[in-house]
Amino acid sequence: MRYAITVQYDGGRYEGWQRQKSTDNTIQGKLEDVLTALDGAPVQVSGAGRTDAGAHALGQAASFDLSREMPAPEVMAYLNRYLPKDIAVVACREAPPRFHARLNAREKEYRYDIRTDSVPDVFARRYQYALGEQLDVPAMRRAAALLCGTHDFAAFCTRANEKKSTVRTIKRISLDERGGVLRITFVGDGFLYNMARILAGTLVEVGQGRRAAEGIPAVLSSKKRENAGFTAPAQGLTLVRVTYDGADA
Amino acid sequence: MRYAITVQYDGGRYEGWQRQKSTDNTIQGKLEDVLTALDGAPVQVSGAGRTDAGAHALGQAASFDLSREMPAPEVMAYLNRYLPKDIAVVACREAPPRFHARLNAREKEYRYDIRTDSVPDVFARRYQYALGEQLDVPAMRRAAALLCGTHDFAAFCTRANEKKSTVRTIKRISLDERGGVLRITFVGDGFLYNMARILAGTLVEVGQGRRAAEGIPAVLSSKKRENAGFTAPAQGLTLVRVTYDGADA
Repeated sequence: MRYAITVQYDGGRYEGWQRQKSTDNTIQGKLEDVLTALDGAPVQVSGAGRTDAGAHALGQAASFDLSREMPAPEVMAYLNRYLPKDIAVVACREAPPRFHARLNAREKEYRYDIRTDSVPDVFARRYQYALGEQLDVPAMRRAAALLCGTHDFAAFCTRANEKKSTVRTIKRISLDERGGVLRITFVGDGFLYNMARILAGTLVEVGQGRRAAEGIPAVLSSKKRENAGFTAPAQGLTLVRVTYDGADA
Repeated sequence: MRYAITVQYDGGRYEGWQRQKSTDNTIQGKLEDVLTALDGAPVQVSGAGRTDAGAHALGQAASFDLSREMPAPEVMAYLNRYLPKDIAVVACREAPPRFHARLNAREKEYRYDIRTDSVPDVFARRYQYALGEQLDVPAMRRAAALLCGTHDFAAFCTRANEKKSTVRTIKRISLDERGGVLRITFVGDGFLYNMARILAGTLVEVGQGRRAAEGIPAVLSSKKRENAGFTAPAQGLTLVRVTYDGADA
């Protein structure tokens, strides 16, 4: 029986989503450990997005198979009982046999939170990039508009694999400043390795006046990582939601 | 020159507000260390409320003297530069020579957050009591109404000092449930040692049906700690604000 789950996590003390050979201190690893104990046989979990070490999720999506059928609420309760307190399963349902959390994902939303006020927020500090300076938000919005659409984002990606396409579509980038926090929301069909953080870092450099919004098209067409901005710290990044077409889910 | 500051802190890794002989891992200790370095002579900080180990503050008030006059914004910037990241000074002003953060405080507001949803909140978990069960909120409101007013709160206090009055006035207790969190707000002229946490624990027991709301007057009049409820965990408690009369400030 296949299951689809929605997972929240505070990624601060993890080596990212994806299970690694050298360590199982990953979100995927923690989920697989608990599910393997539940099922009695090795369970593999597929996540919709491979979030970076230190990045967070409000609505990561994942799927897995259990060898026997269990009611979805029982699977969810078991997971929340045995997972660490910084990982929580907030939804669980039975899914069609062909459902795959990563391959069927239609759209993902990430947000990047920047503390622009010089006084830190002691409660949200683990989920923000503590920049502590005011940014030119209108200039950042102009740059964001030039990043939207379908482009080759090779310049906004670490370790591009030449055999795989680096073309993605960004449907929306919005910037919203309130309470000393600038929140950048990215909605797209998919994000390359480090892409959301490099987009955020590049927008910060525009907001600081260190690069011009109008230079974005040249960065894109260069396809060279060194022409884009810095990789903003992982702790400011949160995977907000993953969207599926009704027919796939 | 006397200064008044407003302080926020995530109290999770501290031994409470009040400086102790055995350790300076306290909020007061951290503030005094930084201010002593700034002033070049020992600085003593008076806090309005001595929050417990593990409890938090959004708006703790404190006052201190510096031997030389410095603009308040410079004092604040210095503090935020050298304080740990889980303590932040969000306001600083010069105060009249007779101002004292504790003695002049007219009203304090505390809140106690209880996670009633069975699924934990991974982002707010450090600032909530993870109870994970539904509570009878109308019964809790009836009990809260019986706690409001001027009473001897000896039963709601750890280590009552027989020489000092345990009479306090609670002006308001409100309960607000949303998003799986029950927030209890306490407003009063002062709170005894552990009082807010024992009030919260007693209300939780009412909400669980383990004690009757109507039993509150008998608990108050007994003046015995063992008749009140358990001391709810410190991590759910936050000192929200301290209010002063205009004339004192």
